Amino acid sequence: MNITQEAVLKALSTVEEPDLKKDLVTLNMVDKISIDGNKVSFTIILTTPACPLKELIRKRCEDAIHEHINKKVEVTVNMTAEVTSTRFGTTPVLPKVKNVIAIASGKGGVGKSTVTSNLAMALTKSGAKVGLLDADIYGPSIPTMYGVENGKPEVTEVDGKNMILPIESLGVKIISMGFLAPAENAVVWRGPMASKALTQFLGDTLWGELDYLLIDLPPGTSDIHLTLVQAVPVTGVLIVTTPQKVALADAIKGVAMFRQPQINVPVLGVVENMAYFTPAELPDNKYYIFGKDGGKELSRRFGVPFLGEIPLVQDIREGGDNGVPAVQDADETTVKAFEGLAQGLAQQVAIRNASQPKTQKVEIKV
Amino acid sequence: MNITQEAVLKALSTVEEPDLKKDLVTLNMVDKISIDGNKVSFTIILTTPACPLKELIRKRCEDAIHEHINKKVEVTVNMTAEVTSTRFGTTPVLPKVKNVIAIASGKGGVGKSTVTSNLAMALTKSGAKVGLLDADIYGPSIPTMYGVENGKPEVTEVDGKNMILPIESLGVKIISMGFLAPAENAVVWRGPMASKALTQFLGDTLWGELDYLLIDLPPGTSDIHLTLVQAVPVTGVLIVTTPQKVALADAIKGVAMFRQPQINVPVLGVVENMAYFTPAELPDNKYYIFGKDGGKELSRRFGVPFLGEIPLVQDIREGGDNGVPAVQDADETTVKAFEGLAQGLAQQVAIRNASQPKTQKVEIKV
Ligand SMILES: Nc1ncnc2c1ncn2[C@@H]1O[C@H](COP(=O)(O)OP(=O)(O)OP(=O)(O)O)[C@@H](O)[C@H]1O
Ligand SMILES: Nc1ncnc2c1ncn2[C@@H]1O[C@H](COP(=O)(O)OP(=O)(O)OP(=O)(O)O)[C@@H](O)[C@H]1O
Ligand SMILES: [Mg+2]
Ligand SMILES: [Mg+2]
Repeated sequence: MNITQEAVLKALSTVEEPDLKKDLVTLNMVDKISIDGNKVSFTIILTTPACPLKELIRKRCEDAIHEHINKKVEVTVNMTAEVTSTRFGTTPVLPKVKNVIAIASGKGGVGKSTVTSNLAMALTKSGAKVGLLDADIYGPSIPTMYGVENGKPEVTEVDGKNMILPIESLGVKIISMGFLAPAENAVVWRGPMASKALTQFLGDTLWGELDYLLIDLPPGTSDIHLTLVQAVPVTGVLIVTTPQKVALADAIKGVAMFRQPQINVPVLGVVENMAYFTPAELPDNKYYIFGKDGGKELSRRFGVPFLGEIPLVQDIREGGDNGVPAVQDADETTVKAFEGLAQGLAQQVAIRNASQPKTQKVEIKV
Repeated sequence: MNITQEAVLKALSTVEEPDLKKDLVTLNMVDKISIDGNKVSFTIILTTPACPLKELIRKRCEDAIHEHINKKVEVTVNMTAEVTSTRFGTTPVLPKVKNVIAIASGKGGVGKSTVTSNLAMALTKSGAKVGLLDADIYGPSIPTMYGVENGKPEVTEVDGKNMILPIESLGVKIISMGFLAPAENAVVWRGPMASKALTQFLGDTLWGELDYLLIDLPPGTSDIHLTLVQAVPVTGVLIVTTPQKVALADAIKGVAMFRQPQINVPVLGVVENMAYFTPAELPDNKYYIFGKDGGKELSRRFGVPFLGEIPLVQDIREGGDNGVPAVQDADETTVKAFEGLAQGLAQQVAIRNASQPKTQKVEIKV
């Protein structure tokens, strides 16, 4: 029996995408089928290059061909990714950005900027196009964490409008107040000025095409947060917390804000940072300095995915201070923790895009 | 020779107050001299009950009497304190509060609230009258840290005006947004609303007579900070930092804000928090997870006193989560660290009051 394109499609239509709960053919994920005698090759278009199910899906495709066509077919599954989006056509701001993801906490110092910078790096390494907007106008950390404290963005004219060019570091496009104000001065501004800066970072920056634009939010639930959801439809928010009570109390407020009916931004998941400390001399000991499992409890309470825990590791802090996110070159545990988080987040974005309505910009005045 | 009041005063006029660099008599610190044959007693009025020089001053007084009058005199030095102030008559707001001390950092999560709550406790234990104003409207931590999360302040009428009664816990008078908004809701407010809440906490709260009102500031250099310095003359500010670069960068901005010519609030000192971690099993090891000596460098850079370092200790975090500041009942190292900080700060307040002009309310619009 000759192998046909139809037979391949029929076989692959028995393979379900585990997250999206539909088959690969229905999801339009199969492309470039080519048949050469006993050899079959095709491409699976994943919803994100950081897809944690890549190998599982590859295996299932091979099995399906073997089962439904013939055990002896030589199958080559190529993998590519096209990040999904629900943002296109929703807004003139960030028109070519597929997903806008806010990283928030409520509480200060829980590691929003650290998580954001490592996420940006991990997603970039997986092959995605990533931007990082540092929305902490008063205490911008991203320039330090990417080793570009002296970055001075250029301005270029596009269609008669002056646009800021983001600074690129380690493959990530970055904009931050740290590029515009001298490090030794305070930006002593009331809310409206800070909001104006954010609006420019969003609308007057030449971001170009991005799969993910990560927004590193400041602590609190105030002007910057409101301006963000009023300026652009936000795909979803990642909540960073540390395990202790005072951090959870503020994370709860963070979730509550994004879930307010008039704001209504999906919470994609919770990550617990600074979960425990392990001294090099006592590799089996875990010191839960800030408490235990607080992030897990939070995710249960709000019925949102728990996307993992990041231990308290000197390398992570040093990566931040030295300008190279730890996921780039730290020890395996640390790298795995951040890569796992990036995969989990990208997965949640794909699920969100497949199953939930578009986020709307917040129109009413809050 | 009979001992006379004059002789005692003359002897004590040779004793210099080590901080204020003037003698005790000139400083009006000697009171209630009583002479009974060979016995002399008098009271030294310190500038703060948390004075770290108490024993040193006592010793010098005894020595002076012995040297200038007679070796055999039996001297009894009583110690009392009257906290000094430069605030009286400067403003109708907080009229009976001797010192308003802001605790700031720039960066989030460095331990402002933890330091503030332990300072309040340590100063109260030393005998001072202390209030604690939680100015973190979006993420109030103080109610949790003092075990009064369910506090509901009463309102009373004073001279036809409704005044809020602070909640008293462990001897400290407290006001916080946490008493007014449900814990599970976010306070999603733009700056002006938050500023209004702060103004009420300052002006519409029945603080009564206080030696020290500590203000736990939120991170950043924004509305709350500006509103504070516009509403009341602030005696001084304590900068809390952790050792790492990204924290120091924000602490520098914090100092820069208070030193802006039109704001001009004295920086009383710097404390370095989360300085190192020591596992119980390795009591001689110090893990500098967040780096080393950053606080010291900051204090050198700005020429302000370094008021000590607080290690990273699980008890301190637990004290915060359990509602009893660690200085109340943790191990000796922790208690000493916070008591030393309280003494150092009280000392700097006294020096500031003796040597620097009154802080003025910020009048111009910033
Ligand atoms: N898992 C970790 N292990 C070690 N250090 C960490 C870890 N996560 C964060 N840090 C360090 O803790 C400090 C605070 O982290 P970070 O600045 O990312 O917090 P943040 O939530 O962005 O703070 P802010 O509220 O001020 O914006 C930084 O110095 C960072 O390097
Ligand atoms: N020296 C310390 N040892 C152990 N834990 C500490 C120490 N200092 C602070 N913490 C813990 O770290 C967390 C952050 O501290 P805290 O809330 O006081 O910081 P903050 O600067 O007030 O934060 P925010 O910017 O959100 O107001 C708290 O859970 C606190 O208990
Ligand atoms: Mg940050
Ligand atoms: Mg705080």
